[in-house]
This record gives sequence, C-alpha cells and structure tokens, in this order.
Amino acid sequence: MQNNMHTSLQVLLQNNTLPSLCAGSVALVGAGCGSLGNLTLAALKLIASAEAVVFDALVDSDILVLLPETCERYDMGKRGGNVSASQDAINHKLLELAQRGLKVLRLKGGDPGVFGRGGEEALFLARHGVKSQFIAGVTAALGCAASAAIPLTHRGVARSVTLVTGHQQDGETTHHWRTLLALGSTLVFYMGKDQAQKIAASLLLAGADATLPMVFISAGCREQQQLFYATVSTMTAAAKQIHTDGPTLMILGEVVAVGSELQQLLTDIDSGGLRHAVAG
Amino acid sequence: MQNNMHTSLQVLLQNNTLPSLCAGSVALVGAGCGSLGNLTLAALKLIASAEAVVFDALVDSDILVLLPETCERYDMGKRGGNVSASQDAINHKLLELAQRGLKVLRLKGGDPGVFGRGGEEALFLARHGVKSQFIAGVTAALGCAASAAIPLTHRGVARSVTLVTGHQQDGETTHHWRTLLALGSTLVFYMGKDQAQKIAASLLLAGADATLPMVFISAGCREQQQLFYATVSTMTAAAKQIHTDGPTLMILGEVVAVGSELQQLLTDIDSGGLRHAVAG
Repeated sequence: MQNNMHTSLQVLLQNNTLPSLCAGSVALVGAGCGSLGNLTLAALKLIASAEAVVFDALVDSDILVLLPETCERYDMGKRGGNVSASQDAINHKLLELAQRGLKVLRLKGGDPGVFGRGGEEALFLARHGVKSQFIAGVTAALGCAASAAIPLTHRGVARSVTLVTGHQQDGETTHHWRTLLALGSTLVFYMGKDQAQKIAASLLLAGADATLPMVFISAGCREQQQLFYATVSTMTAAAKQIHTDGPTLMILGEVVAVGSELQQLLTDIDSGGLRHAVAG
Repeated sequence: MQNNMHTSLQVLLQNNTLPSLCAGSVALVGAGCGSLGNLTLAALKLIASAEAVVFDALVDSDILVLLPETCERYDMGKRGGNVSASQDAINHKLLELAQRGLKVLRLKGGDPGVFGRGGEEALFLARHGVKSQFIAGVTAALGCAASAAIPLTHRGVARSVTLVTGHQQDGETTHHWRTLLALGSTLVFYMGKDQAQKIAASLLLAGADATLPMVFISAGCREQQQLFYATVSTMTAAAKQIHTDGPTLMILGEVVAVGSELQQLLTDIDSGGLRHAVAG
C-alpha cells in the first residue's frame, strides 16, 4: 500500500485484514452515526460486495449510494411516521436472504451491539444454521460527542461513561442514573428527548444537582446538527423547544461544561479575541 | 458518487460532508481499535492530508502507512516497556507544530473522547489560540465486543453499558461497579487485566454474583486476538494465565454468556452439526 491519496479504493479494500462477506451468511454492520465520515473501512468493504441489504432508518443516504447497483435493498426502518418493521420480520427477512445463498448485509446506524438488536438477530440466524459476524461502528454517543466537542471522559471530571436508552422509567433505573451521576460517570441517553421531563423529575427527586449541565444533540453528525444546552432543572423546558423528527441524543454530566468551555474558546479564536492572548 | 468498487478513493474522500485539516490547527482523531477495518473515512481523509502527526502506541501500523511520505511523524506512545511521553510533552508538541502553521493530526487508538485525553489536549490548545476538532473512532469496547461476537446491550439481559478504566480502586467505585452490575449494565474495563484480582475481590466483597461471566480480550481486533472466558470468581486466576504485552480489555456481564452461546452455535454450524437442524 502506498501513500493513500494515490491508492485506489479497490487496492485499499483488498487489505487482507479487512473482513469479507460470505455467500449464505450475514454481516451485522454498524454504519456509524449520521454521516459518511463515521463509516469504517470494514463496513465500506462489505457494502461494496453486498448482494442484499436490510437497512434501518438511521443509515445515511450518502452511505446507501455506495451499494452495488445490483444489490437487493430492503428498507426496514421507521421514517416519517411510518410503521417500522417488527424485529421478527427483520429476522425472517435476513434468514430468507441468507438461505437463498446471498451475501447479506444488515446495515444499522451506529454500532450493531449498542441498542442495535444485533445480538438478537445473530442468535436467531445461528439457531437456524446461518452464520453472521459483527462489524463495529461509531455509536451515536461517540459521534455526537465528537461533533459537539465534548469529551465523554475527562480527568478530574468524569472517569466513566454509561450509555442508556431514554425508555427506562422504573425506580430501579432512576437510582441507577443518580448513582452514576454521583460517581462522576457521564450519562448518554439514546432517544431520550420525549422522556426528558420524566428523566429530569426522576433525577431531581433522587437528589441530582439541579445545575448539572446537559445537552440535547439533534441530527447528530449531520449537516443539520443542533445543540441545545440546558441543566437538569431546565431540560424539560428545553426539550419542548426542540422541533425535529430526527434522533436526539442527550449527554448529562460535567463534561458538557468542558465542551461548552471549549466551544467558547474556539469561538473566541474565530473572532480574533484569543489568538496570541496567551503566551505559547 | 458511483458504485464504490469503481470509485477512486480520491473521489470518495472529496465528499463535502467529510472534514478537512486546516493549517495551524489540530485534528484529534480516533484511529479506531486495533485494525485498519475500524478506521473511519473521516479519519482516512485527514490522515491523507496531514503534514505532521503525533500518534500513540495503540495506532495500527497498517494505518500509519497511509500517511503522506512527507508527513512529520512523532511517536509519543508507550511501547515495549519504554517510557511514554508525558501529557504535558504531547500538549506542547501539538502546540509547536500548529504554531508552525502545519496541518496537525493527533492520532489516537480508539476514540479521542473516551479515555483518550482528547479534552485536555483540545483545551490546552484552545487556551493558546489553536483550534482543534474531534473525529470519533471505534473505541475498544465496541471493536473488541464486535470481534468477540458479544452484544454490549441485549434485550432482557443488559440495557446499558458502562465504560470504565481498570485503575479505579477506591470504595466509591467498587460500589459503582456493584450497582451497575446489579442493575444489569454491561461493564467494560479498559486496561484492567493487571487489576483483575482487586476488581474481582471488590466485586465479590460488594456482593456480586460469583458466577457472573466475563471475558478478557487480548490484542482486540488484531490478528492475534485471544479470548479468555472466566467468571468473577475465576477471573483472578485466568488473568495470571494471560501472557501478553498488548492491551487487554475486560467485559463483565450476562452479555458475555450471550456471546458464548453465539460462538458455540457458530462453531456447531462450522462443524455441520446445526445446519438444517432447525426448520427455516
């Protein structure tokens, strides 16, 4: 392999450390969060050789265009209020395609093993004699945090990070969140915007600091990405101001303040106020 | 963009949704975990245009070969017992390179915002008038779990996942781990092998289930990857059997049993025992 600007994609993708699709089997592939940039080379190689793809609503259209023209396409995601396919229907579609001997790509937004039901699909297929492999992707927590310039861990501020869904609403999980926050773990909620009021109320009831910073990230990693900063005490009101159909991620923890400070410094640099202000 | 097997890398990397390196600024880029396959297209594009790179020990050599030949290279990682560069030395090297007006790439294994000190580097640079951006990568938890066929969340088994380092050893964090396990969160320890005895003792003392499955993943996502399955009660002994200089990740939680079951089914398929055993 040579200097990559002179390397063809074909040569790069022939690197023998990259995985291959096998006839009659399924690759459960993370397409990454939101944009082409978060697609991995492993995913790209499998996309290029897929004979059938089953994809969900979070897969970027810039990625779907990379599929071979002859690839059979099955959109089994939820978009614009349409009913999404059931997990059972997805499982059976994957099985049917694999049993036809095709090279099957199950393309998911983010990572297949983080709130992606990848384990369920792989077990279902394996119990029916069909092999699969997992290909990791940039999960939304990582992609959104990076594009918002928020480190998920930060020395002296957060020494762990927990990824949860916004749909956990019993007393046990409230205690869970409170414990995590008290211990300095960053909390990342997937799809939690509609639950913001309940989450905030639970956290406050459990004794969380009302001024703890948090941020909603809508359309994360996409051109339309928007950040809405709030605190535990203001997040309910903030959530009501966010009008978007797309996925919204929530990050709670002191790292959000680190990210805000960084954003402010970057803005200052852009406006000329900071450059040369501090000795090199 | 056309069918990607006929698209040159150059054309693909010209997609305007991919980020660019700017003269006099730094990109804090995740190179992904362990192998070329986990490199993202955004990272690949920035690598291709870097004028100076500061990289750590976890960046794969298959990735470094993609740097332009003229790129200045600074290896500031710890390898084979050598003393690693201090964070302060890294910060100042990045600043010096940016102040020379170069397009600077800070290339890290995994993701820059997850135990990567990316926030510290970005703040240091911004306080000195230098801009930076974060580019997400496949962090070790995701890469290793995928290559070990372990879903990090799984319906009815684990509804959250927490990433921690193995270097947290006070009573507060013991309680943290215990709470997480009790609530069904998967725990992923970065670099925890040397702390396995302490972690196991703490967990058992805190009342964790001694039979809870766990796995050590050495040289994750690399050709030499090895899995060592154990339980909380046997992990201390297991850790002593692992002789490797490379990074070792630990996954604790019931999802490890899901992964084991899946691996067993896949082995059965390979041996011909399962195919056609279950009706399609």
